[in-house]
Order: sequence, then C-alpha cells, then structure tokens
Amino acid sequence: MPTLTLRTPFLIFVGDESRVTYAKTGRGIVDWRRDHCAGQLRLSAGACDLGLPDMTVAEAAGAGVGSLVIGTALVGGSIPPAWIATLTEAARAGLDIVAGLHTRLAGIPELAAAAAEGGAKLVDVRTAPADLPVGSGRKRTGMRLLTVGTDCALGKKYTALQLERDMRAAGLSADFRASGQTGIMIAGEGVPIDCVVADFISGAAEVLSPENAPNHWDVIEGQGGIFHPGYAAVTHGLLIGSQPDAFVVCHAAGRTEIEGWPHVPLPSIGDVIERTVQIGRLTNPAIRCVGISVNTSTLPEGERREYLARLGKRYGLPAVDPLLTGTAAIIDNL
Amino acid sequence: MPTLTLRTPFLIFVGDESRVTYAKTGRGIVDWRRDHCAGQLRLSAGACDLGLPDMTVAEAAGAGVGSLVIGTALVGGSIPPAWIATLTEAARAGLDIVAGLHTRLAGIPELAAAAAEGGAKLVDVRTAPADLPVGSGRKRTGMRLLTVGTDCALGKKYTALQLERDMRAAGLSADFRASGQTGIMIAGEGVPIDCVVADFISGAAEVLSPENAPNHWDVIEGQGGIFHPGYAAVTHGLLIGSQPDAFVVCHAAGRTEIEGWPHVPLPSIGDVIERTVQIGRLTNPAIRCVGISVNTSTLPEGERREYLARLGKRYGLPAVDPLLTGTAAIIDNL
Repeated sequence: MPTLTLRTPFLIFVGDESRVTYAKTGRGIVDWRRDHCAGQLRLSAGACDLGLPDMTVAEAAGAGVGSLVIGTALVGGSIPPAWIATLTEAARAGLDIVAGLHTRLAGIPELAAAAAEGGAKLVDVRTAPADLPVGSGRKRTGMRLLTVGTDCALGKKYTALQLERDMRAAGLSADFRASGQTGIMIAGEGVPIDCVVADFISGAAEVLSPENAPNHWDVIEGQGGIFHPGYAAVTHGLLIGSQPDAFVVCHAAGRTEIEGWPHVPLPSIGDVIERTVQIGRLTNPAIRCVGISVNTSTLPEGERREYLARLGKRYGLPAVDPLLTGTAAIIDNL
Repeated sequence: MPTLTLRTPFLIFVGDESRVTYAKTGRGIVDWRRDHCAGQLRLSAGACDLGLPDMTVAEAAGAGVGSLVIGTALVGGSIPPAWIATLTEAARAGLDIVAGLHTRLAGIPELAAAAAEGGAKLVDVRTAPADLPVGSGRKRTGMRLLTVGTDCALGKKYTALQLERDMRAAGLSADFRASGQTGIMIAGEGVPIDCVVADFISGAAEVLSPENAPNHWDVIEGQGGIFHPGYAAVTHGLLIGSQPDAFVVCHAAGRTEIEGWPHVPLPSIGDVIERTVQIGRLTNPAIRCVGISVNTSTLPEGERREYLARLGKRYGLPAVDPLLTGTAAIIDNL
C-alpha cells in the first residue's frame, strides 16, 4: 500500500539559512533520526550548524547518500536561485531531492532534467501518494495511539515523537507514523493527510498504520483539531482511519482561541476528549484517552509542574509536558 | 469566489445509450432544469429519448448552445471511441464539453486540440476549482438547509432538489446548491466536495453557499454520512462549512448496513440527528433537524404512508417521501 517513502541516508541541505527557527525541519531530523543523517550541506560559513559532518555533493554521492533533504523553511515557499546549481548537481549525481515547499520541484526545468539524467526522484512531501483507497473501517491487528489537540500547532508531532522514544526506552515496540510534511521528513515515511483528496482521508489513515504485531504500537501524529473550523474534517478522517486504542490530547498553556481564527474560542480539553471518543467509537469501541500533553513553555518556570498537576487531577489523567517531564506517565497508563 | 460554473443552454449528449438507468444524469437535468436544455444529441435511433428536440452539433452551435453535456454514466468511466468524432466537432464549434467521468477530457489529444481551436472549455465536474480557501467559520447572512443521511445513495440530492421546487412553489426564495458531480450538471454550478483537497473541505462548502439575502434559503446537497467509515470526513467538512440553520435526514426504508460496507451497521436516524447537531453547533448554534426524508420505494405500496407516519411520530418531525408526498410538510416546519 502506498505511503511516501524517502531514500535514506540523508544529506541535510541548510543553504545559507542562519536563523535556527527557519532550519527546524533539519534540526528535527537530527534530533529524532540522527541515524538517517549522513551529513549537512551549507552554502555559507554563517549557515546553521546542525552538528553533522559537512559534505559536498560529491562526497555525499560517494558515501551512498540516498536523498538531499531541504531542511529549511522558506518565506514565500519557493527555492532561491542561488540553490539551484547545488540541487541540480545532487540530482545529476543520483540523489533524490526532498522538499516540503509550495513550489513543485518538478516545475524547475533544469532540476527536472538533472533528475532524469541522474535517475533521481524529485519528492514533494506535500504531494499525496496516488491510488489511496477509500476507508474500509475494518479492524486491524496491532495497537494504535493518536495525538489529537485543542488546536493546530501545539505539539502533536513532538508529543508523538517523544512517546515513540520513551516507549522504545521502556522496551515497547513502537513506531512514529507521520501524517504531515515535517513528520514525513523526520520519519522518512508517511502520508501528508491534509493534502489527500477528501474521499480518501480515512483510507489514507488506514494505509498509514497498517496491520502489525498484536503488541506493537503505532504512535500516529495528529492533525488539525476536531473543533477547528478549517481543519476538523481532516481530524475526523484521520481519527476514524487510525482507529486508535488510545489517544493523547495536546494543548498549549494559556491559549484561549484557535490560532489564526480569533473569533473561535478554543475548546476545553474535556470537550476534545468527549468528541474524540464519540467519533472514534465508530471504528474502535475501546478508544480511550490516556493522557494530556501540554506545551507549558509560556508559563513562569516555577508554575509549570503545578499547572500539570492541577490539570491531571481535574481530568483524572496523567498530564505531561514532553520537554519538561517526558511522557513516561502516559506510557504507564497504557 | 470559485465554484464550477457551466455555460448554458445545454445540448444533452446521449450517445448510443439505450438503458434509461445509464442516462439518468441527462434525465435529471431535464427533470430539474428543463430551461437549461436546448436539445439532445443521439448517435443511434435506439438511444434514450429524453423528450428534448434532437439536434446536430451544427444546429446546436447555430442555436447558441453553450455546452455539450455528457448525460450518460459509463461502465469503466472512459469515453467510447465512437463518440470522439462528435465531441471533437462540438468542441471545434465552440461548445464547452462537460463530463463527470474518471477519464479526463483534456487527456484525449484530438479533443484538446479541437477545444483549443474552437475556444471551448473541457470541463471535468470531478475536478475541484482552484484557489479554494480554508474554512473561516464566520457566520454568513441568509438561511441554509443541508440534507444529510444515514448512508450514501439514498436521496440527499433528490430531496434537496424537491425541497427547492416546493419552496419556490410556496413563494420562498430558494436555490439548490450542488456538492456532487450529477448535482453540478443539474444545477449548472457547484463544487464537487469529495474531490477537494482535505484542508479545504469546509472552505469549499463556505464558497458553495455564499452570503445571501436574510430570507433566502440555500438548499445544500449533502454527501456521504457522518457515521460512514469512508466518507464521514467529507460530511463533517460540508456540515461545518454549510453552517445550516436546518437539516433534513435522508434514509432508505429497510436499509440496515452501510451500502458496500456490509460489516458496518447503519446508524439510526436518531443517532444521525444527535451527531449532526453536535458537530454543526460549531458554526451555527441554532442548527436543528426539520424533517426526515425516506425513499420508501422498497416497501409494499400500502405500507409506505403508514411507515412515514410511524417514523414522524417517533421522532416528532415531519417524515416525507419526496416522490410520494412531496416535501411541503418539511417546509411548513421551517
């Protein structure tokens, strides 16, 4: 069944990006999948250092690198002309080029020609794989955990990755399953669920977490929010296709409205739990909430743990901040 | 804002299709929008007669026809070679060619060339318009009614069309809004909501029923089913983007499982009402169910009205079969 699969190991392309926040895709790959990274390619001395060996394209090709991955976000989403020569050289040397930009790589003629010459693929991680099925609703073997949220952009991907790490450390068999472009670049595989055609959303989610060993956990990156006026449909399809046994609600401390939708109040964590259970029961009657994951970084240092304790008590669930506490309390509750 | 809009009047192309059920798109256009139809084009004497004047391409062009609309369903979804000459002639004469097939019209080289020559458009009603927005969730003026269902393929489009007809007959200002390919060919306009990219479903629904006069009703064709394991995400996005004041639950008497998903039991009408209200409140807190519309054609003739009466009493709502009773009882309840 079709997911997007990237060819490892990676050469992380940093370009001339000196701002750390704009290099966070590359940073994320290094943080979570260091073993996928052979090296970094920087076009200037001032570019971010991700702590990887610096490599030229020729060195990367010689070292058997599979893909050059563009590890920076771009304002405007298009590729600076100064990068084209290096990307073209890499494609001609047979390295797949991987990007999550609005500009389609194949729309750059010299890059398309170089890829054809080098036998390389141009992989846009915003492009959904072809031939996705319609969701069947059939139960699959294996266990699944989905991260959901009171909103977008509050740690669903990060929580899922930390859960994977902590579950593995606890001796559990677990795999992060990426549903968004950055997650796919980190995991090296996945389905960009928000780019799928509407009829195939739950089917794409079924493909994303296929049948597995009975004691294996897929830890699925959530998207959107079930009360989000723009993205709730994506969240709904991902939920029923994922048929999770367990879910974790992600939240950002202090957020009171949907980010970018100031006229829409944020739902409560309790509302999200209730609605997620209602909808999720369609494909997994045993669905339950196993914890709360909050980004507490906006709170004063002395109040973060107290905030989590209060929240945990209120909902009768382990409440963690992955960066502050890890996720072990949630894993103990599985 | 972008919806698909077809150029009227239409020449309905029947080809050599002699089976009435396979010509139902053409039939539907004649039934619901006779004033859009200038004539029919049949390739053989045995082809279905839709009751329109027979016209050649030249006659249609002379009469100012805007589009040749392929009014038949095709097994396999592709265009028979025997049709190409006629379609090409029409495109060269400047008629837009409209189809809802899996094969893309622009992928037929001689047709693409003829369209370029004649200044005609090739319109695939399965292709969503470009530049759809993300849903805003903002309240729009005007009133909206959405048809929902216990499943797919049980009369959501038909009910909406009959409601439009009966509302207009009752002196109300009302427009059918098409969310599927056949509906679009009937209405001459709409958005194929199940073909939209996931992130834009509710935004597409917002475009489909734009701001309108305070006493105007948009009667929106529903899609999928909120408990459907394949299509519930589409239903969810269409619901919150439509922000309906009123909805009608459509059902087929005797159906007990999701059609094509025999392992999934059909939800009850009560379940659908409850869940639709829960989700719809996000963008319209005043949402309410105003009636039930059932296809009772599978019941014995003598039991149909009694079945509707029983159902209406059970839910405290008007229960109609549009073909048997019309929809006036629902309109009285608005």
